Amino acid sequence: MILVNGVVRSEVSAMDRGLAYGDGVFRTFLARGGTALHWHRHYAKLVRDCAALRLRVPDRQVLEADVKAACGDDPRSTVKIVITRGPGRRGYGYAGDEAPTRIVHAEPGADTAAAQREDGIKVRLCSTRLACQPALAGVKHLNRLENVLARAEWTDAGIAEGLMCDASGNMIGGTMTNIFIAANGVLATPRLDECGVAGVTRERVLDAAARLGLQCAITSFTVNEVLRAEEVFLVNSVSGVWPVRDLDGEARQRGRITRAVQLALQQEDDAQVA
Amino acid sequence: MILVNGVVRSEVSAMDRGLAYGDGVFRTFLARGGTALHWHRHYAKLVRDCAALRLRVPDRQVLEADVKAACGDDPRSTVKIVITRGPGRRGYGYAGDEAPTRIVHAEPGADTAAAQREDGIKVRLCSTRLACQPALAGVKHLNRLENVLARAEWTDAGIAEGLMCDASGNMIGGTMTNIFIAANGVLATPRLDECGVAGVTRERVLDAAARLGLQCAITSFTVNEVLRAEEVFLVNSVSGVWPVRDLDGEARQRGRITRAVQLALQQEDDAQVA
Repeated sequence: MILVNGVVRSEVSAMDRGLAYGDGVFRTFLARGGTALHWHRHYAKLVRDCAALRLRVPDRQVLEADVKAACGDDPRSTVKIVITRGPGRRGYGYAGDEAPTRIVHAEPGADTAAAQREDGIKVRLCSTRLACQPALAGVKHLNRLENVLARAEWTDAGIAEGLMCDASGNMIGGTMTNIFIAANGVLATPRLDECGVAGVTRERVLDAAARLGLQCAITSFTVNEVLRAEEVFLVNSVSGVWPVRDLDGEARQRGRITRAVQLALQQEDDAQVA
Repeated sequence: MILVNGVVRSEVSAMDRGLAYGDGVFRTFLARGGTALHWHRHYAKLVRDCAALRLRVPDRQVLEADVKAACGDDPRSTVKIVITRGPGRRGYGYAGDEAPTRIVHAEPGADTAAAQREDGIKVRLCSTRLACQPALAGVKHLNRLENVLARAEWTDAGIAEGLMCDASGNMIGGTMTNIFIAANGVLATPRLDECGVAGVTRERVLDAAARLGLQCAITSFTVNEVLRAEEVFLVNSVSGVWPVRDLDGEARQRGRITRAVQLALQQEDDAQVA
């Protein structure tokens, strides 16, 4: 079901600035019984991302009600929230008093990523590079053509994700995931101050690592360091933690750090559902 | 009036990939009596830009009919065409057989830029930089947050345009215009193989310069070279050729090369309308 500004409908204005310029942000996450998992984090991220674009963020309660309505009676849903600057006139300028458009879309469904979390996924390296734009780095905005180009590099349904570097060759992450690597008992994940999306599950992993007493560096590293790492896993709010079992054709094993992080996040999920 | 896929309506699917990812391209231009000025160039640019994103481009005759219908009986219109990959499922991937969405929007109106073409415009320098992305450079796609950020840098209605550099400090152009500079009788305009939009009027100026026997270099230059240039003008398909009369607070005059280019383009426009 789709709600636009709180009303069940499937269309938006053809003049919406989200369509015209990608002038907006989004989130995708899981809900159980109409309630978003880790909602406090998702809402906080929406607040930060809207602030980066100087977008008015809808009230938390308004979005909670939209999510509940969009999920209906479905016990498990995947939910996407899009917030745009709303309909506008022709031209890049905006007045600042635009009424934002909020789109909340829920799809019912079982957890289709469970087997992949257990068995791991096959991952390739993408040749599409991410451009460096500090003014937008980290923000999950609607300008995602680089991700579309990268995802169009493969059609093999057995490959779950592709990894992307920035223009300087620094590993940034998957087309729809954040990446973590582990070597010698230490975790690392890329800095995202030049490009990439700083996702909510990345933040959860960083917090879980701290609780587990695991060191985790937010740093720069190349594809070669990913290839040499003992463990590699990819995360997002829909799939959870995906161990990489095949990286660019080379077989790999799920390691103990990946397993510890998976368990920590699973416990958090279970606590929310209980 | 707005037509979506040839039908008079003002809405599009909330699942359109143009909205979700900016997965599409656009054009803005003038029409007279329902016919686009320099339509062969605009359509050719749409074909090239759609090819860059592997989008199916609508037939030329289909778009011509849309433009005519959207303009109605208006003698002068400003028209915007948006082509997106159409509605899609969640996720960056696409099958390739998506039905594109075409939006054609026409606004009636007199030529509001005539005085500015005569008197020149006031221009500022923007601090927002354009990221370097060769895979998308030159294409007028829907990922335009950088332009939105740059345009939000000023509110003074007396300033018509802002100039943007890339991350390395190379001048690229205005938020909605291409730039030309002239010094010692030679024209220059930036290379757009790393970022920027290679507009139709830029192409017309290059052709006109060749006809006029003017040298025009497509090259790299910095803000300082713009500040030192004898003549600076900005172009797009709606405003035509704008001489810069005030650049970052410094007064400037419209020079003879700017005037020659203006006349050449005006003659082309007149020939199309005759």
